[in-house]
Amino acid sequence: MFQKIKIRIEQELKSYIRGLEKNYHLKSLSPLILRSIKEFILRKGKRIRPILFCIGYLGFAEKVAPGLFRSAVSLELLHDFMLIHDDIIDKSDIRRGKPSMHLMLQRQLPHKKLKFNGQDLAIVIGDVIYALALDVFLEVKGDPKLKEQSLKQLISAVLYTGSGEFIELLLGARDLKKVTKKDIYKIYQYKTSNYTFASPLVMGAILAGADKKQIKTIFEYGIKLGIAFQIKDDIIGLFGKSSDTGKPNLTDIQEAKKTLLLWHAYHNSTSKDRKIIEKIFSAKNVEEKNLCQIQKIILNSKSIDFAKKEIDKLRKESESLLQDTGMKPKYQILLKEFSEKILTIEPYLFHSIDTIGKIMPR
Amino acid sequence: MFQKIKIRIEQELKSYIRGLEKNYHLKSLSPLILRSIKEFILRKGKRIRPILFCIGYLGFAEKVAPGLFRSAVSLELLHDFMLIHDDIIDKSDIRRGKPSMHLMLQRQLPHKKLKFNGQDLAIVIGDVIYALALDVFLEVKGDPKLKEQSLKQLISAVLYTGSGEFIELLLGARDLKKVTKKDIYKIYQYKTSNYTFASPLVMGAILAGADKKQIKTIFEYGIKLGIAFQIKDDIIGLFGKSSDTGKPNLTDIQEAKKTLLLWHAYHNSTSKDRKIIEKIFSAKNVEEKNLCQIQKIILNSKSIDFAKKEIDKLRKESESLLQDTGMKPKYQILLKEFSEKILTIEPYLFHSIDTIGKIMPR
Repeated sequence: MFQKIKIRIEQELKSYIRGLEKNYHLKSLSPLILRSIKEFILRKGKRIRPILFCIGYLGFAEKVAPGLFRSAVSLELLHDFMLIHDDIIDKSDIRRGKPSMHLMLQRQLPHKKLKFNGQDLAIVIGDVIYALALDVFLEVKGDPKLKEQSLKQLISAVLYTGSGEFIELLLGARDLKKVTKKDIYKIYQYKTSNYTFASPLVMGAILAGADKKQIKTIFEYGIKLGIAFQIKDDIIGLFGKSSDTGKPNLTDIQEAKKTLLLWHAYHNSTSKDRKIIEKIFSAKNVEEKNLCQIQKIILNSKSIDFAKKEIDKLRKESESLLQDTGMKPKYQILLKEFSEKILTIEPYLFHSIDTIGKIMPR
Repeated sequence: MFQKIKIRIEQELKSYIRGLEKNYHLKSLSPLILRSIKEFILRKGKRIRPILFCIGYLGFAEKVAPGLFRSAVSLELLHDFMLIHDDIIDKSDIRRGKPSMHLMLQRQLPHKKLKFNGQDLAIVIGDVIYALALDVFLEVKGDPKLKEQSLKQLISAVLYTGSGEFIELLLGARDLKKVTKKDIYKIYQYKTSNYTFASPLVMGAILAGADKKQIKTIFEYGIKLGIAFQIKDDIIGLFGKSSDTGKPNLTDIQEAKKTLLLWHAYHNSTSKDRKIIEKIFSAKNVEEKNLCQIQKIILNSKSIDFAKKEIDKLRKESESLLQDTGMKPKYQILLKEFSEKILTIEPYLFHSIDTIGKIMPR
């Protein structure tokens, strides 16, 4: 069922891309814009947001609204826009296993002195995709008032994700010892949970005509699930195979991301280890060696066990909320399966930790 | 009348700002976001876009929709978002006579090694203001279908302005001799006319229930007027007092903007002067001396006379279109007065040219 929705989303993405030229005449404006947008949008992805939007809808709807799956594309486009701007800010070269948008554009520029670069072009392409996302959302047919309310949720998702990104950057300027668990959870809530889980589900539920209480509960469910997912994603980011995550393990450390994992490790380590963390986090460039050091400190401080407990706690809380949503049982089961899938730490990860354990014994 | 609408818009902007904290809890998220948005939005500006939106509406409406002026704020916010991203791309330090958003944010950061800068924060604030713009647009009361159609026009304005910005950047990589007048007009149309003139008028007209033919005519009217305005703005940008324009005269040259003025000067100059232009345009930094050189070449090539003829031609075409819009005569007169005001090259400018003429005689 989940897979079936995903296949449908992929089809819609492809047909959306085919219509892009016809609907907006982007090619006559700039073939480079059209080509870059197409390439980026069609990259492999989990499509979590459009899928959750559809589940949010189907869980409360009597029948499928015409254009529902088409309008789900908006959530993937919104994600693409955010990834593009994020990668500029984080100076990331790789996205979904391929060059980030700004790097891809930079490579297409003539080799001569220019007053602009790939990042400048990528800021603009991000803004354009933001507009495309809004436009395609409006294609769903239905009660205009519900559509407007659902659109307002989409808008608020961008607003709060942006704010979350902003405070995460500011937190980067703060010493690790002054960062609280509450700070970290606030960022997880705004930067991940809201726009990846809560808002897509809520947007679908609103369109389907769910009532206020149901919407509130499904929002809270999404927030809990999203925070749990972010914690798991931090573990994968640091220990997972980069062929699976699509980005190097060094990324979070390079960006000095204040993750829950790192927060716990910092507060449960020797002062010698704390100094190592501080040094790596303030360095301009980090190396493979530093990754191993951080991994070792995280393992020694039992921060993975702590993180797993947090994930379990949040998962249980979210499951209990799910029962109160009034969603059709079939879709509750679907969401439960989905959350198990995304929250389970796959065996290959443990293998990786073992490997590190052998290389650098405690 | 025009002034009356402007005063109303200013009031709405202020009350919008007052409600910002209450409606979005931005302060509890980050006081810096809220403070920066407030400061930037309240800077002095011409408010052309919200005013034209109101005129577009009032010119076709039976009565004023509740929330109309509130929703006009969206067009000023949209402009703010674009200015913020533009200033990052153009590396501009000054906006509306004050530090650009990225510079203002940079100055608030602690003086230590950080993994991000004011530009990164400003990308995000731009995205957040984009969301705020969409949200406040939805506050107007009216037929939901007309609201949706009007919103689609707003979205397309961002889409095409972004595309216009993109092709303008790419044009920066092209040699001046390969740039055509058509290229320049295409950018003027997409980057200025559409979102500053045509789209605000059309958005208002749609909301008021104007018919398809009327909307098409008012759109074309806005495009013509906007191109004329951009040509005049280029003259002011180069020769006007920076205390009036809010940015240094060097800006366009520093950014190597391919303006109509420059295109004409290039094609109507001696080969020696062409070489000077080329050299200045490919230099990394330009100085006051270069500004004088360019000004002199533009005066010698009679490019201002050419530009003024183009403005007059476009003004006449737009006036003839205005008569066909079916807009209430009162508002036609208002638009005619408005276009005269914004297209007239004020005396202080000639004074400035005279001054230059004396300093550097032909």
